[in-house]
Amino acid sequence: MRPNAIAFDAYGTLFDVYSVSALAEDLFADKGAQLAVIWRDKQIEYTRLRTLCDQYADFWQVTGDALEYACEALGLDLTAAARDRLMGQYAALSAFPENVDQLHRLKEAGITLSILSNGTPWMLDQAITASGLGGYFEHVLSVDAVKQFKTAPQAYQMGPDALGCAAKDILFVSSNCWDICGATWFGYHTIWLNRYGHPMERLGVAPHHIGSSLKDVADYALGITA
Amino acid sequence: MRPNAIAFDAYGTLFDVYSVSALAEDLFADKGAQLAVIWRDKQIEYTRLRTLCDQYADFWQVTGDALEYACEALGLDLTAAARDRLMGQYAALSAFPENVDQLHRLKEAGITLSILSNGTPWMLDQAITASGLGGYFEHVLSVDAVKQFKTAPQAYQMGPDALGCAAKDILFVSSNCWDICGATWFGYHTIWLNRYGHPMERLGVAPHHIGSSLKDVADYALGITA
Repeated sequence: MRPNAIAFDAYGTLFDVYSVSALAEDLFADKGAQLAVIWRDKQIEYTRLRTLCDQYADFWQVTGDALEYACEALGLDLTAAARDRLMGQYAALSAFPENVDQLHRLKEAGITLSILSNGTPWMLDQAITASGLGGYFEHVLSVDAVKQFKTAPQAYQMGPDALGCAAKDILFVSSNCWDICGATWFGYHTIWLNRYGHPMERLGVAPHHIGSSLKDVADYALGITA
Repeated sequence: MRPNAIAFDAYGTLFDVYSVSALAEDLFADKGAQLAVIWRDKQIEYTRLRTLCDQYADFWQVTGDALEYACEALGLDLTAAARDRLMGQYAALSAFPENVDQLHRLKEAGITLSILSNGTPWMLDQAITASGLGGYFEHVLSVDAVKQFKTAPQAYQMGPDALGCAAKDILFVSSNCWDICGATWFGYHTIWLNRYGHPMERLGVAPHHIGSSLKDVADYALGITA
């Protein structure tokens, strides 16, 4: 396909959410990597439970709550100072190394680039700036505007509304397979950026294409890969 | 409280979902316990994603899908015979050992007992029979009737509808903390059966009481514990 617009998921797709692991390892010796995984899983779980029950709290709140749960689950003493440092790191995540070159290719080709994320506007601003991705995105859409997290249809609807075209004409990119399943069900043209070689979710729905880096996404969007 | 009615979650609360571990260990050597955990986590994840996206498939389907994912994630070769044996075991889970005595106490006291579960009617029938709990429950409510899994409000609404009283007058019992959070948000009087000493979820909501076995639940419902 040759899309007019691309909507990128942010966390895990553009920004490396496990880049907090290094700091976590500094703070909690050999449990940092495990903490990062539980933190991330619990964060996502809370977005779903809150959306299912219409009990929205924003992603910054949910991220802090998930961190506290993860520390308690691992028996780690989360001091106020450690909490501030980990949350601060989450607000300034690293981008994946190939990002800038590939976003540049896409932008040069005249494709409208956007982000559609569970993050708050403030978190997205911080992450975009910290990772040097400023200037690439015409729309930075936060589900905070609709108070429902992905994979709720109301969250995905923000893309067509902002971009002025049908979901099927927008290429939706995410490294999170569950996000890809939700977006495909919603009607987007989808590419799963399977960065970690995970199995496909068994949900009876499949992405239109699968890649392993943002270069694969750019090649696909530019028609270099069928 | 002295409730007129109690609604029990089934899987993990009355029936031990990890009782499949032994069979899984037989089939897959030292990866059985890990398989049981991933299987359960993925099963729950799929119920949420399908409900959020209005893509209901019943719990038997979701359970089989989750088993396939879990095996692939662990690099295990799931033969058709192994799949049949594991799914068959899931349809005949063990009850927790204290169940019968405690359900007997509650029933003798004139409290209406019911189940409100994500399971299909067929799965619940099988599990109740296999675990020797037949005859204790006046209502066995499956969310299959509303095609939305817990924690959707439509699922919780089945309790008041069937029992003919307000949610606040029904004691809702679950070992799954997320289920307790959803039920509390919905309006039930709740007791978290924290069988495994897990941390409380950080969702800004708390159960009315916490116990560690069905004896604690019965004591609470019969007014022996405040």
